[in-house]
Amino acid sequence: MLFTSYQSKRRSAEEHLSKLSKLARYYSLLSTTAAGSGHLTSSLSAADIMTILMFGGFFHYDLKRPDYPNNDRLIFSKGHASPLFYALWAAAGVVSERDLKTMRQFKSRLEGHPTMRFRYTEAATGSLGQGLSIGVGMALAAKYLTKLPYRTFVLLGDSEMAEGSVWEAINTAAYYKLNNLVGIIDVNRLGQRGETMYGHDVARYKEMLAAHGWEPIIADGHSLSRLAIAFREACMVQQKPAMIIARTVKGKGVSFLEDKNGWHGKALSDTEFKTAVRELGQIDKSIRGTLLLPQQVQPAPYSVRKRKVPRYRLGETIATRKAYGEAITALHVKFPAMVVLDGEVSNSTYAEIFRDRYPKRFFEMFVAEQNMVGAAVGLSRRGFKPFVSTFAAFFTRAFDQIRMAGYSEVNITFVGSHAGVSIGEDGASQMGLEDIAQFRAIQGSAVLYPADAVATLKLVSQAARREGITYLRTTRAATPVIYSEGVSFPVGGSKVIRRSESDIATVVGAGITLHEALKAHAELHKKGIAVRVIDLYSVKPVDVKTLREAARETGHLIIVEDHVPEGGIGEAVRSALANTPTKITHLAVMKMPRSGKPEELLDYERISAQSIIDIIKRIKKIT
Amino acid sequence: MLFTSYQSKRRSAEEHLSKLSKLARYYSLLSTTAAGSGHLTSSLSAADIMTILMFGGFFHYDLKRPDYPNNDRLIFSKGHASPLFYALWAAAGVVSERDLKTMRQFKSRLEGHPTMRFRYTEAATGSLGQGLSIGVGMALAAKYLTKLPYRTFVLLGDSEMAEGSVWEAINTAAYYKLNNLVGIIDVNRLGQRGETMYGHDVARYKEMLAAHGWEPIIADGHSLSRLAIAFREACMVQQKPAMIIARTVKGKGVSFLEDKNGWHGKALSDTEFKTAVRELGQIDKSIRGTLLLPQQVQPAPYSVRKRKVPRYRLGETIATRKAYGEAITALHVKFPAMVVLDGEVSNSTYAEIFRDRYPKRFFEMFVAEQNMVGAAVGLSRRGFKPFVSTFAAFFTRAFDQIRMAGYSEVNITFVGSHAGVSIGEDGASQMGLEDIAQFRAIQGSAVLYPADAVATLKLVSQAARREGITYLRTTRAATPVIYSEGVSFPVGGSKVIRRSESDIATVVGAGITLHEALKAHAELHKKGIAVRVIDLYSVKPVDVKTLREAARETGHLIIVEDHVPEGGIGEAVRSALANTPTKITHLAVMKMPRSGKPEELLDYERISAQSIIDIIKRIKKIT
Repeated sequence: MLFTSYQSKRRSAEEHLSKLSKLARYYSLLSTTAAGSGHLTSSLSAADIMTILMFGGFFHYDLKRPDYPNNDRLIFSKGHASPLFYALWAAAGVVSERDLKTMRQFKSRLEGHPTMRFRYTEAATGSLGQGLSIGVGMALAAKYLTKLPYRTFVLLGDSEMAEGSVWEAINTAAYYKLNNLVGIIDVNRLGQRGETMYGHDVARYKEMLAAHGWEPIIADGHSLSRLAIAFREACMVQQKPAMIIARTVKGKGVSFLEDKNGWHGKALSDTEFKTAVRELGQIDKSIRGTLLLPQQVQPAPYSVRKRKVPRYRLGETIATRKAYGEAITALHVKFPAMVVLDGEVSNSTYAEIFRDRYPKRFFEMFVAEQNMVGAAVGLSRRGFKPFVSTFAAFFTRAFDQIRMAGYSEVNITFVGSHAGVSIGEDGASQMGLEDIAQFRAIQGSAVLYPADAVATLKLVSQAARREGITYLRTTRAATPVIYSEGVSFPVGGSKVIRRSESDIATVVGAGITLHEALKAHAELHKKGIAVRVIDLYSVKPVDVKTLREAARETGHLIIVEDHVPEGGIGEAVRSALANTPTKITHLAVMKMPRSGKPEELLDYERISAQSIIDIIKRIKKIT
Repeated sequence: MLFTSYQSKRRSAEEHLSKLSKLARYYSLLSTTAAGSGHLTSSLSAADIMTILMFGGFFHYDLKRPDYPNNDRLIFSKGHASPLFYALWAAAGVVSERDLKTMRQFKSRLEGHPTMRFRYTEAATGSLGQGLSIGVGMALAAKYLTKLPYRTFVLLGDSEMAEGSVWEAINTAAYYKLNNLVGIIDVNRLGQRGETMYGHDVARYKEMLAAHGWEPIIADGHSLSRLAIAFREACMVQQKPAMIIARTVKGKGVSFLEDKNGWHGKALSDTEFKTAVRELGQIDKSIRGTLLLPQQVQPAPYSVRKRKVPRYRLGETIATRKAYGEAITALHVKFPAMVVLDGEVSNSTYAEIFRDRYPKRFFEMFVAEQNMVGAAVGLSRRGFKPFVSTFAAFFTRAFDQIRMAGYSEVNITFVGSHAGVSIGEDGASQMGLEDIAQFRAIQGSAVLYPADAVATLKLVSQAARREGITYLRTTRAATPVIYSEGVSFPVGGSKVIRRSESDIATVVGAGITLHEALKAHAELHKKGIAVRVIDLYSVKPVDVKTLREAARETGHLIIVEDHVPEGGIGEAVRSALANTPTKITHLAVMKMPRSGKPEELLDYERISAQSIIDIIKRIKKIT
């Protein structure tokens, strides 16, 4: 009797889930047909998987509180399956059919790929291969920081398994034993233009994942009962992350779409829609899926003991990269949400100072910059404030992740050391010469470039306070302290550090070139030539007012930067001086750089004190 | 008797190799000590491996002809082991001891990381995780294009195995069954700041590589005889690439360096140097290693049959991305060195037109942009002219590889489709909005942005002729043909397509915004307002003369671009107009973009015809 009742309960539960997956398919058809575009077939392949995950008793989420810290996390790394994503939340009762029909429209919150405008989106996706890294960040937060019991689920497409960033995330997740992270590969065989590298060879995925230290679980992606077993297993794995490898059929449920090439990203005509809906059979629009409520647990308490803020004497020399390490370590007490990530170069970026003091708040991310940035996105979405460091040059590696981070509304500070040719002997491959251009191009970013240890300390503090994406550029070489402790460095400001009534030009420098400007100033001063010197420590936003004033008062600006001319400080200043008539001379890295002594390279690229002096003398001759 | 003679020959060969590896170590000590910096310990760990490879009868190379196509290829992906790289060529007799002592000096060709200034460098390395992709390109060239018998050997560090790009290369090499590619992982356990993810667990590497379809071969990295067996095995593998997983000791040969943390990238003092050399024992500086000569084989002949060049009628509408596909297909006959690579979006970039016509000259690179770019570097170094396409947005994924490509002196055209907010419904993740900034920042690059099919055809031809890195930006939407067939489009030029004596301003557009400018012109013309319109199809180099003239004659420039303001067309123009007093209004993508209709988004971002009209009317009111 009891047994029969259990059996019948189970049967009815399965029927309910089956209806829900049909509903998710229907909604996917509905939204894409209404939009006239969107990735229908990629949604249909994953409909059964995600129905089981969300409504089969695995997903804990308080629908009324998307910001509740204990909610499980769901990331569609295959962001183009957004029609399914919205369909699931509709099946959960928080998105209406009317909403679905607005998908991809300008005013709709249901965008072509999930964005933060939709309240159930955990992070913006759509550039493939990034979701698992974001999941790594969220899982690190739960396992090592808040100790909260939530799980992070990431839906991956099989095409995106070709992205190296996914393998970075796979390796890192295994290294950190993230058993609270569950990935699902929707192995539907077909990419955008044909078969993927491995087609339907799920055994191959299994072998690879096992070798990389994951628990791989193969499942029929269209059998609700098998999927339930797979999720149950995945949630029980200890000491490692689990990956469900679901063999699916692209376009599943609609015969003329199933396993067919040529339907990627295409919507149905109205007639096709009707045929498809007919095939699905009866759809019960009255039902809704139920999510389990998350546990009521408080995050682990965390407190930081006060530490002395470093003090720097005027004239002492210290590299800004080292001052960075000291700054984050000293300021952590003020900003306990701070976590520090580094890409296997913490002894060069000096993130190691923080690591040694707060090892539990430091994550070694190895030489895998893309995953490091993705993980930082995940950590930030969970309320942390990541400081992420590597060589400035190597942030180019994660430009796509940084670009997408801009769309995920995160608070992250990126810190690039070893900027410019002034690093010297290591040569071009290690020189950050495009980093300012890269970070300026991110909407809403700030680009900060301290010239000394005091400025570094103050700017790290500004960065920690700031929302959005902040870039801090540090220098390899030790440079003298030029500011006293009391000086403040607001984002968007600058410092006029040399000025007189008779300045015949203004030299605008930042970081290493500011010191060249100061040397030039001293030399010229001896010869009775006065120039103004501006420290443009905030490259974005830029201090328009001070630059305009200098332009007006001195008539000629010499901008000197250890960066390529395109997109760097020179162009930032030119844009700031729009419609202010000024003579501008722009000194930047214009020749192929190479190994050599820092001073030789500054001279070679014509961004040294001597180069500035030469220009000023020419101006002097003319005036 | 015969046996004894064989044995004794073998023993003497082994002794010779042992002396050579000692010599390589000595030279590594010599150059780094002289330089006072450089990666000594990372060189010492790989000295035995590379001695066996080069001088143990596996490496075919004509020292007198580094450009000989049949030479085996050797890439130090762990470019920081350059002291060993130079030491090996010194042991081969083509680098002198005096040269070695100049390492890392400004005038030396022996840079901190291998660059093209050293004639035996195949490609610039130093940013980790890129060498295997370059090797994939060279191996693809040999196996599928020239059918030459050379092998490509790539030395990898164990730290860089964390880089996703390496796994992209691994997957692609297995997919293309590159049995002419041999990788070697120098598993010395230690990264820059401590232990790597897997330490000395060579079995783990083996398992992973086997799962990814490689032939993994574990060897004791300090046993010359075991290494010889490993290389022999690697060279015999059929239908798949081989990876030698060599367990080594960082700093091997110098007891106080061996397996010690804290010595990465550090040189010895003179005293330490002496101790180290003493430990090495007697060094025979008189010996030289011998390389085998490569086979004398001709590359497979290749010819392309003539194809009709597409003709476009004025006013017909066709997307420039489609015109790109037609252009490469039509022009292949003129440029038979052309090969086409695409990142799983050939039906969007229209590279598929070429693929369908010349399948053997097309490589599907899947969703792995970093490896795609690295492979293009390898193909270019072997004499091909790759055209590499994906969405403009996704080239951000490979910024580091593109940056490094700039240092490898390659000839590659990158083609980014789906540029700007004008792609519409897919939303921000798919929009190329930073691509111009990215490609402008590459030294010596050209950035081209055709507005119609004719311009596309002509610019593809220019790109094929051009040396260095060229970026071509294409548009998703179909746009009308505005140029007749006879028009030429030199790199660095522009087109004044509307002008009159009474122009009150100049609108500078490119690509999609040129069409908005033309619409604005037509509207304004009806109202009796004359504006000049310039098609700035060459964003870099930029046509300074025409811009200056327009500034002088019309007094006001309105720059309109479907790109963020930083580093884009506006800043390129501002830089061009340095010291030419002009009023400039810059319209660019300044708000967070989203899904919507192309026209809605152009309006929203204020880069539409209407936005231009609004500005001009304001100018009109003032004048």
